[in-house]
Amino acid sequence: MHTKEEMRAAVEAYLSSLSYSRPPVELYSPISYTLALGGKRLRPVMALMACEACGGGMDEALPLAGALELYHNHTLLHDDVMDKAELRRGRPTVHAKWGDNAAVLSGDVMLLLAYKTLGGLPAGQLQLVMPSFTEMAVEICEGQQLDMEFEGRDDVSVDDYLGMTRLKTAVFFATALRCGAMLAGAADKDCCTLYELGINFGLAFQLQDDLLDVYGDSAVFGKNIGGDIFCNKKTFLLISALNHASPSDRDALRGWMSRTEFDAGEKVAAFKSIYERTGVRRMTEEKIAAYFAKAGECLSSLSLPAANVRALGEFVESLLHRSL
Amino acid sequence: MHTKEEMRAAVEAYLSSLSYSRPPVELYSPISYTLALGGKRLRPVMALMACEACGGGMDEALPLAGALELYHNHTLLHDDVMDKAELRRGRPTVHAKWGDNAAVLSGDVMLLLAYKTLGGLPAGQLQLVMPSFTEMAVEICEGQQLDMEFEGRDDVSVDDYLGMTRLKTAVFFATALRCGAMLAGAADKDCCTLYELGINFGLAFQLQDDLLDVYGDSAVFGKNIGGDIFCNKKTFLLISALNHASPSDRDALRGWMSRTEFDAGEKVAAFKSIYERTGVRRMTEEKIAAYFAKAGECLSSLSLPAANVRALGEFVESLLHRSL
Repeated sequence: MHTKEEMRAAVEAYLSSLSYSRPPVELYSPISYTLALGGKRLRPVMALMACEACGGGMDEALPLAGALELYHNHTLLHDDVMDKAELRRGRPTVHAKWGDNAAVLSGDVMLLLAYKTLGGLPAGQLQLVMPSFTEMAVEICEGQQLDMEFEGRDDVSVDDYLGMTRLKTAVFFATALRCGAMLAGAADKDCCTLYELGINFGLAFQLQDDLLDVYGDSAVFGKNIGGDIFCNKKTFLLISALNHASPSDRDALRGWMSRTEFDAGEKVAAFKSIYERTGVRRMTEEKIAAYFAKAGECLSSLSLPAANVRALGEFVESLLHRSL
Repeated sequence: MHTKEEMRAAVEAYLSSLSYSRPPVELYSPISYTLALGGKRLRPVMALMACEACGGGMDEALPLAGALELYHNHTLLHDDVMDKAELRRGRPTVHAKWGDNAAVLSGDVMLLLAYKTLGGLPAGQLQLVMPSFTEMAVEICEGQQLDMEFEGRDDVSVDDYLGMTRLKTAVFFATALRCGAMLAGAADKDCCTLYELGINFGLAFQLQDDLLDVYGDSAVFGKNIGGDIFCNKKTFLLISALNHASPSDRDALRGWMSRTEFDAGEKVAAFKSIYERTGVRRMTEEKIAAYFAKAGECLSSLSLPAANVRALGEFVESLLHRSL
């Protein structure tokens, strides 16, 4: 099997081989710009990894991998419009740089390019993975819708949050793994197991992201620490704190959340001290460990050569920086 | 062959058979709302018409027809955001009723549902038409981009306008005809000829739309007369008037275009009187006739049974309310 780095390089080369240089320039510039911002290309690499682990060749899954990355970048353009986000990977977002209309329209083109790329698969393969790809994309929209609705709601439960995260984040990893396996002609059971593995990995991945927002090292994490706290984002940590904090701590959290003017450092410090008292960090770590354990069970129930399962396991572990 | 009315009914029934009742309600309501606004379903009926004219069955082209209509409605949602349009078919647009974010996200889902529907074709058929469908959708985005850019430009030529219209409007009809024919297994030459027919029809259709905005009967046309004049839309008529009017009439047009406060009726009357003096109505009618004649040539060069060609011709004629 190829290494993660080799797969990432193959994805980059594949994305670069697609041309975005047609007129009108203003439509395609945001696309080149977004793809050049880089990123870890996690989802396409996962698809290639699953395809090889199931005995397929990396190259035959490249149209799928390219489509997943183009789709992912499409969601970034549109999400940044909806969330009014100004920065991504330290650079201005497309809507901040070119305006909302450009982000909507160039984002539409990126979604179309994803399908154009997927259409590069042989007919049978295309029909095999297209329903799964499209269902994933629809579910991600459902997740984004719920995420936006949660902003205005005071009664979001942990289950609501996990349901939303499953749709917005986890199905993407799950579908990448399943479709990669499908292209390799894997048994249905293994395709389903890889999907479940992706769901559990994706939930662990998002909870770890929530945790890193509060306790991470900004140099490593690549985002400002406390960003979620700053904008009252209903993460697993905040929802758990609101559920489990003492009445006075809960009131304090609600107080901070209702303030429109505040010192960012003070707010982050106040949240962290309540999180500490409430045991929210431990709760989150336990939840991550539970999802990670389920992902491990999925891995060990795959009917694939041991070496391939090991490579897949090492890849998943490396993404969460912990042992499976 | 089925009649236009029967085909339209089949499209309605097919669209109704798709379910848009999943949660979250706020994501799917704008989709049901938009599809319920109706419309003439021109593009899907064209696809069915071409499929039958080439010897195929209507039912086998229904997934294509449904995908075309869903895609069309997706563009309405996003275009209305970009154009800040408040009304469509006499009802509030999705962005006016639910906000920009809903129009963007539900619009994305409509595009995905188009591909989901297209995925209902047998594998070989899917791979046959998907590249054409996707290329059409990309070109329509390019057309929308040019249309937006033209708003801020003073040097839009007739050729620029026709190039934009080809992308934004004509390729849609052309692709509907071509893909319908492809599904029927038509000869490549006939598929290409039908595409050319669609391009010429589409250009005639848009120029007729431009003309009706000024000279139409609002009860029949379904839009307020003079809407394009009100907002300085660079239609074939306005561009031709700016090119051919006397220096004083050109100055008068520029004067009206630069005013932000004016009486709408006075502005429309002033434009119409300049259009009259410049012969813009005749120029537009001649251009429409020329495209229509080319569409007729395409029709007569098809290698299909005479009765089928006649039915297709009558359909196209009925859309432009004139003889071919």
